Amino acid sequence: MVTMLDVTDVSAGACCAPLVREPLTAAEAEQLAATMKALADPARLRLLSIVAASEDSEACVCDLTEPIGLSQPTVSHHLKILTTAGFLTRSKRGTWAYFKLVPGALDRISQLLVAS
Amino acid sequence: MVTMLDVTDVSAGACCAPLVREPLTAAEAEQLAATMKALADPARLRLLSIVAASEDSEACVCDLTEPIGLSQPTVSHHLKILTTAGFLTRSKRGTWAYFKLVPGALDRISQLLVAS
Repeated sequence: MVTMLDVTDVSAGACCAPLVREPLTAAEAEQLAATMKALADPARLRLLSIVAASEDSEACVCDLTEPIGLSQPTVSHHLKILTTAGFLTRSKRGTWAYFKLVPGALDRISQLLVAS
Repeated sequence: MVTMLDVTDVSAGACCAPLVREPLTAAEAEQLAATMKALADPARLRLLSIVAASEDSEACVCDLTEPIGLSQPTVSHHLKILTTAGFLTRSKRGTWAYFKLVPGALDRISQLLVAS
């Protein structure tokens, strides 16, 4: 029996029936596709990798615009999508917003793809 | 040093510098995003999971339209995207095309996402 995947918010302890073990239901596929769409963008993948490779897996938005070469509103837009999808959390300190990788969020997606 | 990822065709022995270890380059992010876009669609995820869960990880296109509830041209379109991205191989036998999961293709994407 497949437990309903809650992968729209990957931080919410998603179950992990791998993609390859049995056919996904339509609802599971919709949710997983939505989560993967949040990742399937070059700017968002780069932002996520910069945050993930930063000390404590956290970075200030002020340090994210320059390496990506996009405007701050555009970067903020992408960060919001990653936050809504459960890959990042946002906290405000003084003037700036800081984004931190959600522990295990990428691992959960990863586990859905592997064969065992 | 990051070796250039060849993730447009995930079957081509992609290197595996994980996303979280160091920032992706623009080129790496473009390639990984293109591969993830091939997956980030509900119909394609369902097709892939049906093929993967089939005997020998192979299925006839004739058995894929009914469970997905889409027309054969639409299903063929999605299967072509999955094949081009390196997740499936296609072989013709008699009237029908058969699609087979490429061993390791999903694992390679999975490995890019995990922390270690």
